[in-house]
Amino acid sequence: MNPPEIHNWGRFGDDDELGMLNLQTPASILAALRLVEHGRIYNLSVPLEADGPQHPMFHKTWQTTFFTTHSDPCAFQVADDVVTMVTHSGTHMDALGHCWTDGTLWNGRGSEHVTSYGIDWAGIENVTGFVARGVLLDIPRHKGVEHLGLGEVVTADDMQACADAQRVEVRSGDVLLVRTGWYTVFKRDRALWESGEPGPDASCTQWLKDREVMAIGADNAGVEAYVAKNRDPKSPRLHITALRDLGVYLIEHVDLEALARDAVYEFLFIAAPLRLSKATGSPLTPFALV
Amino acid sequence: MNPPEIHNWGRFGDDDELGMLNLQTPASILAALRLVEHGRIYNLSVPLEADGPQHPMFHKTWQTTFFTTHSDPCAFQVADDVVTMVTHSGTHMDALGHCWTDGTLWNGRGSEHVTSYGIDWAGIENVTGFVARGVLLDIPRHKGVEHLGLGEVVTADDMQACADAQRVEVRSGDVLLVRTGWYTVFKRDRALWESGEPGPDASCTQWLKDREVMAIGADNAGVEAYVAKNRDPKSPRLHITALRDLGVYLIEHVDLEALARDAVYEFLFIAAPLRLSKATGSPLTPFALV
Amino acid sequence: MNPPEIHNWGRFGDDDELGMLNLQTPASILAALRLVEHGRIYNLSVPLEADGPQHPMFHKTWQTTFFTTHSDPCAFQVADDVVTMVTHSGTHMDALGHCWTDGTLWNGRGSEHVTSYGIDWAGIENVTGFVARGVLLDIPRHKGVEHLGLGEVVTADDMQACADAQRVEVRSGDVLLVRTGWYTVFKRDRALWESGEPGPDASCTQWLKDREVMAIGADNAGVEAYVAKNRDPKSPRLHITALRDLGVYLIEHVDLEALARDAVYEFLFIAAPLRLSKATGSPLTPFALV
Amino acid sequence: MNPPEIHNWGRFGDDDELGMLNLQTPASILAALRLVEHGRIYNLSVPLEADGPQHPMFHKTWQTTFFTTHSDPCAFQVADDVVTMVTHSGTHMDALGHCWTDGTLWNGRGSEHVTSYGIDWAGIENVTGFVARGVLLDIPRHKGVEHLGLGEVVTADDMQACADAQRVEVRSGDVLLVRTGWYTVFKRDRALWESGEPGPDASCTQWLKDREVMAIGADNAGVEAYVAKNRDPKSPRLHITALRDLGVYLIEHVDLEALARDAVYEFLFIAAPLRLSKATGSPLTPFALV
Repeated sequence: MNPPEIHNWGRFGDDDELGMLNLQTPASILAALRLVEHGRIYNLSVPLEADGPQHPMFHKTWQTTFFTTHSDPCAFQVADDVVTMVTHSGTHMDALGHCWTDGTLWNGRGSEHVTSYGIDWAGIENVTGFVARGVLLDIPRHKGVEHLGLGEVVTADDMQACADAQRVEVRSGDVLLVRTGWYTVFKRDRALWESGEPGPDASCTQWLKDREVMAIGADNAGVEAYVAKNRDPKSPRLHITALRDLGVYLIEHVDLEALARDAVYEFLFIAAPLRLSKATGSPLTPFALV
Repeated sequence: MNPPEIHNWGRFGDDDELGMLNLQTPASILAALRLVEHGRIYNLSVPLEADGPQHPMFHKTWQTTFFTTHSDPCAFQVADDVVTMVTHSGTHMDALGHCWTDGTLWNGRGSEHVTSYGIDWAGIENVTGFVARGVLLDIPRHKGVEHLGLGEVVTADDMQACADAQRVEVRSGDVLLVRTGWYTVFKRDRALWESGEPGPDASCTQWLKDREVMAIGADNAGVEAYVAKNRDPKSPRLHITALRDLGVYLIEHVDLEALARDAVYEFLFIAAPLRLSKATGSPLTPFALV
Repeated sequence: MNPPEIHNWGRFGDDDELGMLNLQTPASILAALRLVEHGRIYNLSVPLEADGPQHPMFHKTWQTTFFTTHSDPCAFQVADDVVTMVTHSGTHMDALGHCWTDGTLWNGRGSEHVTSYGIDWAGIENVTGFVARGVLLDIPRHKGVEHLGLGEVVTADDMQACADAQRVEVRSGDVLLVRTGWYTVFKRDRALWESGEPGPDASCTQWLKDREVMAIGADNAGVEAYVAKNRDPKSPRLHITALRDLGVYLIEHVDLEALARDAVYEFLFIAAPLRLSKATGSPLTPFALV
Repeated sequence: MNPPEIHNWGRFGDDDELGMLNLQTPASILAALRLVEHGRIYNLSVPLEADGPQHPMFHKTWQTTFFTTHSDPCAFQVADDVVTMVTHSGTHMDALGHCWTDGTLWNGRGSEHVTSYGIDWAGIENVTGFVARGVLLDIPRHKGVEHLGLGEVVTADDMQACADAQRVEVRSGDVLLVRTGWYTVFKRDRALWESGEPGPDASCTQWLKDREVMAIGADNAGVEAYVAKNRDPKSPRLHITALRDLGVYLIEHVDLEALARDAVYEFLFIAAPLRLSKATGSPLTPFALV
């Protein structure tokens, strides 16, 4: 199998399942921690509930709380919940093994690693957590709009120009968070929100590789731009080029509103997926510290 | 309703749902971050899978991965998972509203806040995340045993003596992690593991209140000592005194083996539950940084 | 607790959990079997799948099939499914304990029988199965319309007139199936279908009691007429008067199209819910034999 | 692909997904109905609940009941349940497409029909219901034992001898129910019950083909004999020869105790699986009428 044109296969050895997370080192962690000056936390997750944003959108999250009511009210009482959900519900991270093409997963491994019992290559349980420099690119603010339009593509040039205008540099080992404003559409216009979304597309692959980001996240369902009615089986290409070709993680449904409001463009980014064995992704609660 | 004898009700106002997490402030966060010298991460979670340790033990976690295999192998392919689990599966945090007695929840609110649709008082979605000083008390090492025995109680005196011997102080705002060695029993002797566990009990409530810890975790199913066959409806009391009376969070099935092996007793502790609306708890992946 | 105005409480003894199903006797079964002349089966269930009609409508049914693919293709291979669903999904039967009011369930029992662990009064596991005379009332055919309108009420007079016109008598021990034509709306106009439905309402309670039917079913989500935007907490009244007051079972999302097309108005009706312990209802596959 | 040595492939046409259920005709249905003399019902299902017998055994069935408690107790109140289960839970029927080998399903179709989204060949939704002559073979009674032993094989000769002794003939179109007594072990000795089971094995394949039964059921987890610790990837062979080669349905966890107690060996057998689209099997509630 020939590697794809733009890729990081073999960069961390043939047996590597971590991809660009390899750039997270003791030195990078210490540098990221030093970014915090005020001790202020921003919660970047959306509520995880039946009516929350999910991907794929047709899935619901179910939660039921069960409890006993003893006839003796002085007895110890306890309530638990059962939740049924796609692991790509709410704010979540995609494992590198989540998508593939040409019968090949991240780092050139074959798709026989994918079965109904999970993925035993590049599953989410390999990721302990991200402790990294985070950078927010507030694209709609840069463009002077409330939010980008349906299917509008954020190009590498857009991201570079936005970073320059914000006087923030995208560096090796960063977690890059791209604001499109699309999450503000969720409550206001559900039909529009469900019809697709703006975001980067695969044309930024070389730029992502050159910048050496570890992950890219956005305030939409799948990071990349698409219009539901135009979908074809060859897309979404950025999922393929990021996860499979570059080993760059995707983080979806990230709530970037508070960071944008406060014009926080550089911060300590922390996120740890559930240690779900062989899973293709995990909901999580990322947060930013400044 | 009279408050319990040892309690923190009203300490943070009558409308408070956060409990001792109120002690987490910008200043405490900055102090905790300064504990990191090496940039080394310890993953404190157990694998979250069908055969993993769960609580209640009779529950299983289900995961199924579904995917399409197009006839065109060059097409984009994707795998997702569905997971069904009790929110108290694997390494997890209990919400303050998880347990109650006398018809009263944390801070004196009535149990009408608990319905099949969740708890709308002191649910886990109130917790953004813990960024705090963590302290490990390695009780079996202190006692010179491999692990504590079934039902063996770790008293306040035991914890204080262990802290003193380890030359580590338990301070206001800490996350206290108590190692019992019981997780080492999980793979070696499942029957013993399922029959109960060692741990602190409610006799340490005043000590916990005086130390002002924000959370207490352990390497067992429910933090506190119990023997399955002796259970009575008035127990487990520590769940009541910690969660409901003091507003102290419980963290269960924490993997403390690596920290203990390296004799790491003080560290930056980070943990963020899923933002599950109205849930009584959440699985999470806590980690330690030194 | 005083019994409701029109009711069958106590008719079968104070400990009765079966309600009108008590009318099913060896004699009634033999009589019903004698109705079959041709040996022809009509399947009365709708497909039970994620996109099928469910009640409540906002719930989805999830099914995932998991399987192994051994590297040795000659090995034994097996596929199983996991399904997560509300028990009131697809074609289903309501248990008598499904609804209540005034703190009282069928036969006057208190609502403390309902907990998160199920209903231990009048649960669906009490029902082995219906083997009974079935009667179809094809209301839209009788009225000369394709289907009844949103919220249109089928009165006792409508049912009696339809039965008379069809020259079929509604008798003691019957399962009465009322066609509204609403299921034909399901695929053609989902928005209309979700906005409510036509059907009988509580005004037919005395008529149902007098006719002594064991169950009443319809080709809609909840048997009785309603308009979504007008719902109030006192409705749906027919659920209360049928299940709780009379002990008459409800069967929902019944596919009556083939019976109507063939003008089959009298038949052997067979249906057996899953033996789900303490459940409030069950999906099932009823069928008619002529 | 060459058909297996003993098979019914092509017997009902190349596009047939029903297998031996094709033998159910208006004439066979009328004949089966005529078997009923007394109008007495036997419920043949086991309770479907978390602690019930399931297959595979390591799976649990989950049910949670949710309900609202309005502050106004006179308001309408309703309780629903969510259930998560393997479709092969409790008393259930295997679809013909449940098992395969050599890359081939029932009637010679390829295993590409099996995906994570279900089986689109010979799924359970093809089965409306069985209305057939049922025959019980009470093997332990015939052998003078309480129940057969772990892994004990019921041969074709055993079944024939038992039928002869019971003076009942196994005929074309029958549903054959084989009692091993193993269900009586379930509550008495769970460890023994989980270690395997007695039953027929693949050596009876020719006999089953010659008798032209439509289905074979038993009071155990998988109809056929096995010992858990001896399992190999080539077994269980009877699943392959019955479902895939012959098109004979399997019915598992059937409660035959009451029929055996009353020495009822011939009866009307009725069973209808849920109409679960593309599912590999379904729980159901079969019953016998005499």
